[in-house]
Amino acid sequence: MIRANDNYNKLKASYLFSDIAKKVDEYQQKNPGAQIIRLGIGDVTRALVPAVIKGFHQGVDEMANDATFRGYGPEQGYDFLRQTIAKNDFQDRGADISADEIFVSDGAKCDTGNFQELFATDIKLAIPDPVYPVYLDTNVMAGRTGEFEDGRYNGIVYMDCLKENNFLPRLPDESVDLIYLCFPNNPTGSTATKAELKVWVDYAKENKALILFDAAYEAFIREEPLPRSIYEIEGAKEVAVEFRSFSKTAGFTGTRCGFTVVPKECMVFNSKGEKIFLHAMWNRRHTTKFNGVSYPVQKAAQAVYSEEGKVQVKQQIDDYMNNADIIRKTVASLGFDYVGGKNSPYIWVDGKDRDSWDFFDLLLTKAGVVCTPGAGFGKCGRQYIRISAFNSLENVILAMDKLKEALTGRSSAK
Amino acid sequence: MIRANDNYNKLKASYLFSDIAKKVDEYQQKNPGAQIIRLGIGDVTRALVPAVIKGFHQGVDEMANDATFRGYGPEQGYDFLRQTIAKNDFQDRGADISADEIFVSDGAKCDTGNFQELFATDIKLAIPDPVYPVYLDTNVMAGRTGEFEDGRYNGIVYMDCLKENNFLPRLPDESVDLIYLCFPNNPTGSTATKAELKVWVDYAKENKALILFDAAYEAFIREEPLPRSIYEIEGAKEVAVEFRSFSKTAGFTGTRCGFTVVPKECMVFNSKGEKIFLHAMWNRRHTTKFNGVSYPVQKAAQAVYSEEGKVQVKQQIDDYMNNADIIRKTVASLGFDYVGGKNSPYIWVDGKDRDSWDFFDLLLTKAGVVCTPGAGFGKCGRQYIRISAFNSLENVILAMDKLKEALTGRSSAK
Repeated sequence: MIRANDNYNKLKASYLFSDIAKKVDEYQQKNPGAQIIRLGIGDVTRALVPAVIKGFHQGVDEMANDATFRGYGPEQGYDFLRQTIAKNDFQDRGADISADEIFVSDGAKCDTGNFQELFATDIKLAIPDPVYPVYLDTNVMAGRTGEFEDGRYNGIVYMDCLKENNFLPRLPDESVDLIYLCFPNNPTGSTATKAELKVWVDYAKENKALILFDAAYEAFIREEPLPRSIYEIEGAKEVAVEFRSFSKTAGFTGTRCGFTVVPKECMVFNSKGEKIFLHAMWNRRHTTKFNGVSYPVQKAAQAVYSEEGKVQVKQQIDDYMNNADIIRKTVASLGFDYVGGKNSPYIWVDGKDRDSWDFFDLLLTKAGVVCTPGAGFGKCGRQYIRISAFNSLENVILAMDKLKEALTGRSSAK
Repeated sequence: MIRANDNYNKLKASYLFSDIAKKVDEYQQKNPGAQIIRLGIGDVTRALVPAVIKGFHQGVDEMANDATFRGYGPEQGYDFLRQTIAKNDFQDRGADISADEIFVSDGAKCDTGNFQELFATDIKLAIPDPVYPVYLDTNVMAGRTGEFEDGRYNGIVYMDCLKENNFLPRLPDESVDLIYLCFPNNPTGSTATKAELKVWVDYAKENKALILFDAAYEAFIREEPLPRSIYEIEGAKEVAVEFRSFSKTAGFTGTRCGFTVVPKECMVFNSKGEKIFLHAMWNRRHTTKFNGVSYPVQKAAQAVYSEEGKVQVKQQIDDYMNNADIIRKTVASLGFDYVGGKNSPYIWVDGKDRDSWDFFDLLLTKAGVVCTPGAGFGKCGRQYIRISAFNSLENVILAMDKLKEALTGRSSAK
């Protein structure tokens, strides 16, 4: 008899963002005339920049002729892209990462979801709360948790990120083996300084732990002393894997490209306590279960780093961050506490006595604004909502006006 | 202490096609002047057809404007593509598959590798030998095998595909839960009739087993009564999942698109013996660990089914099959037994007393022709090589001439 992976039973029925999409669709169907502004899922709205479009088209053109056609590429990505990434994102910032430590993929969701396959089933995990649900859900599927009880899975060390600790995870009291960190954080938008990350790197070294560092939002960091990569911290290469994405950096959510950095000295241990290098393991996983990213997409990604590409992409991020400013000011003017929005496209708003799904429903039905209910990111998010800056300036202004009206009965529209 | 997934230790050091690429590179470096013709990895060589290029460019153009830009798409694929696939590949051939049973992905390698995640670890697997190595390797990683001994993993039921059984797997003597089948077969090129597949569907129903059916090469079927999909067999929807790819059908090896069909009635069982529907499980997996295929790539895939696309793609496949004819005739004229090449781009050549890696080395060093050593596909392949028809007509003619010369000392070149 073919038996199912019973761990799937432990999962809540569906993925957060699918739930939200469904709720919004239902509302739209019931209210066909209603204008809905989406500041929820965290999806970019602006077109790919001209430099990227040019690179993308060039890649497609090369596929049109036998002489320049590309079949299977290297599973790890083309060298032209790996070199470009290593230089621009790491070496130029003093992080000693080489091209062959970069594994190009179709996005950070896949990589952060798949990476746990390299570890034993009975390791101890530390996961922030609130956080991007993929870290947790993929470990549930793999059998690394007990049942879901009172909003949490048994067996996981949750690191509460609340106002009192500035939304930064604290070192766990009990010993853990695998630590997920995400800075700038999704959903709170909080960031960590070099000194704060150093604490984690030191912990990992002392405890033979490993850090999975999600830096998908690094392009939104405005305050220059903040680290953009964990490899800006001395010693991190032995104990940290980093995930990056072009999704938010360059509007690739529908184009699909990201990468994972696995330094050659990064290690785990076998059951005898002997060192095993993760680079070889991830390489084996990547070559066995993945066949590389579409060639024209890799050409498009390379163009992000061209002179024009850099300027154009920076402008787009500046525009989104201008939206973030508007959102921050609005929620502050309405008397809400918030965090984020300064080095991150997300604003994490404290709804106080409101349940986050109720707050979500209120904003959807009264303002036509879609946010993300904090509960979807964990128990510590139950009184928060996440508002995303990814939309046009016009829509953000309109959404903030509708939000004001819904919550105060007053409109700032002239 | 962060411990590794020890199952990775059981794997042979690297993936077959990476090994071959390395050997070829080494030979090329030692012999920089040598012409090498690649009939090994099974990678297409011909440009994407004009209709596909047009769809691809259109998709990129839509990404260039805010008004038509696409961010995150449905993880399962856009409805325009799922509808097109369901109609053309299934409904038009009498297989009752609907659009929402199609899960679009970045390729069949990922899907055939990932699908095993849905099952319990201690199920019993039946895998043909020889076969595409991904089925086996991904189950080794997941801990469904014992150690590798004498060319085989303990705990797997290998289904020998040899000359005496016409290279078709036989029903296993012991009860199995999960059965991998691949027709037209990679690497042997053998096919199964409807009656032959019916035996497997009946077996699966009687034994509450599940079939994972890899139909990546269906477009190469020339003999019309042969089924192209397992869903042409009555009752298959309850017991079979099917994998498809645009890689070989339309030259997408470097473009990346495929799909998996999970019928809504297809089921597995929980530990209590209760039915669980795979459609919901795969949907949960797909939405949690995958973020959809690049929008322009989906537009390119849709164009495969346009009127011009169909004609152009068929011509390309006809050309490859003409190459297959030439290869078949050459190996026959040299006195080798072979199978395949009639409804498949692969010719499986019996080297008789030659070890397959020796045969590979001989053809590489004496003829400059890259084939795939049969041993890479399993123990039953140890005296075979796989020759692929994916190359230009000129290269195939030249390769066959060099092969003749290397093996007989005579050349047919004028």
